[in-house]
Amino acid sequence: MMAVEPARSGGERKRHVLELLDAEKDAWVATADAQGTVCQIPLSFSWDGQALTFSTPASSVTGSNLASSGQVRIALGGTRDVVLIEGRVRVYGKDDVPAGYADAFAAKHVWDPRKDASGDYAYFVITPVKVQSWREENELKGRTLMRDGEWRV
Amino acid sequence: MMAVEPARSGGERKRHVLELLDAEKDAWVATADAQGTVCQIPLSFSWDGQALTFSTPASSVTGSNLASSGQVRIALGGTRDVVLIEGRVRVYGKDDVPAGYADAFAAKHVWDPRKDASGDYAYFVITPVKVQSWREENELKGRTLMRDGEWRV
Repeated sequence: MMAVEPARSGGERKRHVLELLDAEKDAWVATADAQGTVCQIPLSFSWDGQALTFSTPASSVTGSNLASSGQVRIALGGTRDVVLIEGRVRVYGKDDVPAGYADAFAAKHVWDPRKDASGDYAYFVITPVKVQSWREENELKGRTLMRDGEWRV
Repeated sequence: MMAVEPARSGGERKRHVLELLDAEKDAWVATADAQGTVCQIPLSFSWDGQALTFSTPASSVTGSNLASSGQVRIALGGTRDVVLIEGRVRVYGKDDVPAGYADAFAAKHVWDPRKDASGDYAYFVITPVKVQSWREENELKGRTLMRDGEWRV
């Protein structure tokens, strides 16, 4: 067994979460439809300090679930360095997406869904309302860093 | 941008999936309740060549969702080396779990939920019925390796 590192403080975990939001390219995105059928796929995102921006076809399972349920569970990092985010979902089409979100996404991923005719791409801008972070069991205590949209650390 | 590797054959992907099932300790487990509220957490598993065995409290959100919906979406590997598994769920209590599943789980994780009184641990044995694997966009074609419980490669 690997040695388990000491539990980090809330402040250390918050800094780590913000670093991952800046550094990571993709996140695991879990959604469900009204019947409870679940979908989990990796999607690219950008982060502007307040919200995550994803782009995927409106007609895809994930796009459809995000639009109809307004619910999402996002995972960053590894299974032993977990960041879980729940957020509020706003949906934009190619034509009405605020340029700030779409430009940042295009710059980060060298791909602009507004100019991609291969799918009916929409934008899903997700503002975190709950954020959790833990590595191993010794960090389960204190894992909730944001609740109801407010950082607690 | 990193160079994209050539697309692997179905056989190469199947070997990679089986290697990950042997080597990985944890997987992302996405479930939902009947109202469509989604949950996504990492859980440890063991693999016996036919099924994945997880153990988590029966009363946890994931345990409850698995038991009531019988549905799960499991992700292994990274967001640029994706393995997605859908499967049939069988649920066992500590007292009726077949020893083969529980012994293999305990040996792999040096932790035996049958002897852990800290939670109402149950076992969730999941037989894959659909398996997908891809790295980048050039591997989206041919990503479905198993369908209806049958390997197609």
